[in-house]
Amino acid sequence: MFRFTVTSQDSHTQARLGMLNTSHGTVATPAFMPVATQGTVKATSPRELREIGTEIILANAYHLYLRPGAGLIEQFGGLHRFMGWDGPILTDSGGYQVFSLKELCKVTEEGVRFRSHLDGSAHFLTPETVVHTQEQLGVDIAMVLDECVAAPSQYDAAARASDRTTRWAERAQAVRSREDQALFAIVQGGVFPDLREQSARELIALDFPGYAVGGLSVGEGPEVTLTVARHTVRFLPYARPRYLMGVGLPEQLVRYVALGFDMFDCVLPTRNARNGTLFTRKGRMNIRRAEYATDQRPLDEECACYTCQHFSRAYLRHLAVAGEMLSARLNTLHNLAFYQWLMRSMREALAAGRFADFARPFLLTVEPTTHSTTEENAWQS
Amino acid sequence: MFRFTVTSQDSHTQARLGMLNTSHGTVATPAFMPVATQGTVKATSPRELREIGTEIILANAYHLYLRPGAGLIEQFGGLHRFMGWDGPILTDSGGYQVFSLKELCKVTEEGVRFRSHLDGSAHFLTPETVVHTQEQLGVDIAMVLDECVAAPSQYDAAARASDRTTRWAERAQAVRSREDQALFAIVQGGVFPDLREQSARELIALDFPGYAVGGLSVGEGPEVTLTVARHTVRFLPYARPRYLMGVGLPEQLVRYVALGFDMFDCVLPTRNARNGTLFTRKGRMNIRRAEYATDQRPLDEECACYTCQHFSRAYLRHLAVAGEMLSARLNTLHNLAFYQWLMRSMREALAAGRFADFARPFLLTVEPTTHSTTEENAWQS
Repeated sequence: MFRFTVTSQDSHTQARLGMLNTSHGTVATPAFMPVATQGTVKATSPRELREIGTEIILANAYHLYLRPGAGLIEQFGGLHRFMGWDGPILTDSGGYQVFSLKELCKVTEEGVRFRSHLDGSAHFLTPETVVHTQEQLGVDIAMVLDECVAAPSQYDAAARASDRTTRWAERAQAVRSREDQALFAIVQGGVFPDLREQSARELIALDFPGYAVGGLSVGEGPEVTLTVARHTVRFLPYARPRYLMGVGLPEQLVRYVALGFDMFDCVLPTRNARNGTLFTRKGRMNIRRAEYATDQRPLDEECACYTCQHFSRAYLRHLAVAGEMLSARLNTLHNLAFYQWLMRSMREALAAGRFADFARPFLLTVEPTTHSTTEENAWQS
Repeated sequence: MFRFTVTSQDSHTQARLGMLNTSHGTVATPAFMPVATQGTVKATSPRELREIGTEIILANAYHLYLRPGAGLIEQFGGLHRFMGWDGPILTDSGGYQVFSLKELCKVTEEGVRFRSHLDGSAHFLTPETVVHTQEQLGVDIAMVLDECVAAPSQYDAAARASDRTTRWAERAQAVRSREDQALFAIVQGGVFPDLREQSARELIALDFPGYAVGGLSVGEGPEVTLTVARHTVRFLPYARPRYLMGVGLPEQLVRYVALGFDMFDCVLPTRNARNGTLFTRKGRMNIRRAEYATDQRPLDEECACYTCQHFSRAYLRHLAVAGEMLSARLNTLHNLAFYQWLMRSMREALAAGRFADFARPFLLTVEPTTHSTTEENAWQS
């Protein structure tokens, strides 16, 4: 069922145009996956996701395992039917979420013991149970359980976690049983080049249908993210999809597409929308600012989304200041439409052989500077 | 521009089928107006309101005067363009809201002095400024500034407020200037039959294009609401639209249509939706209840709304329990679709000469009981 094809290779960069075939349809890559942690992209309906050109979304197996439960979703015929999204779905395994619990979680070679952030109940996840959960969810792409270490990580801790991630990947691969689901491995290794290379080589030897680079954008700063991702991607097989987890800002997506990544997810467009920060072709804006109170223009004059076609900046500011739910809705719809436009534009540029021209103005904006860590943090607030 | 036509009269009840013609289109009556207090029906887009058959909405002149300001909305060509709703709009004057401020408001014959609930700023509303505000908003139907008294009201206080409401209505009528806007009067008089009759007669003598019954559903209990409304409607002219403000539950709408009312507004469908209380053809349900956790059926199997066509009770329960914004969206859309279905069904029954048959099962459920006050309060929680 699952197949990935590189259909076109850029001649100036590592960027490539591709096609993912899944049981629930095809996905043109490079692709951005809106985040539906709890089985809904916050404030957005499946119909709207389709309208703006979304082809694949990401949900979180850990969250859905805890609530409403993977067994319940299985009774409904899987997550697609449960949440009313009939296109491809990828689930993150939840390793990142479990390890974020810190003192509430205890890792052994066997798996991870933790207490639910919802009700304190005790749970034990293993590479095998996490595959089982995602098979119950019936998603198109599952992710292995990986061990994440927080930045800044020590070499020894990063090495231990990376080695264990490989062993866990092998165990996950051994128990998978659904032919309609692809299981992706996750390269770890912290910020250490030799660990990243080793992790990639070991996982590639296990022959997964896709590879993610994990453990980045976790506080190491965008320059380090870039350095590590640029180093790591070189070891990933050309013929398999490459997924950079948790990234990022629009200019980062262009940068990482240029480095040869095919798939992305990030909460920035949805989370920022809810606090009034909007992405446009002319840059970012915080719609709550007083300057927009009388501004009759749409958010983004070139945008075809429902928000930009029907509402003014002044109205969107009014909704935000008044605390109306329609604010989060219209803002989220626009930000996601912007991200889908960006990915579509990159694919069109790749198809036309002019990706480097398209990418250049974006790439200039992410040259590492001493201020960029602060800026990234501001975006994640 | 404004015209009301009774197109059909039921032979068993006072119910009538009608048509409101306004500058922004026609409205079939009996009609329910979703409440867009701050220029948005909470959690709902104008596109969705259209899809479920909404023909007219209600906004609040007091709220919009304070934020974002009526002058600003006027610069945008009026509220229709500002909020992206091109159908008819009625604005409540805000008398009810101002008098709810209690100690923050001081009434004289000239008008009402009050402090904003938003920032404490001082304001002075008069019958004339309230007309001006609504003319700036450019709505199709404006309401006069009325003086409301809280229930339980004393006879003398109700009489004074009712008399003043008449004088204010005359002042409002004298200053109106937009030919594309109709100004409706509001009958007051508390729970006292003779005051209600006097208020109605005096206002009718002033010849308004429509009449509202105000000051009900403010804590007097549903039996008293019914008694007073039934008494008052008898004095209202047959050829003018009759608007019962702030009512109500589905069975109350049927009851009041049977008494000859044409227009309604209420926050119940939207507010209840946000706390998980849903109206269906089989009765009410709180979607958060555990019994729905595994229920694969739609909310209402006969409902054609987007929510009922795409999602299960189990998914809606999950969204509500998880605190997801999509919960408020889908619930609100359904409740408003239910209300529009109810009004449409009444109109179809009236057109077919079978209103009494349609209404009977609903009317049985609102026979006054000693428990109904409690129940009404529960619905408003």
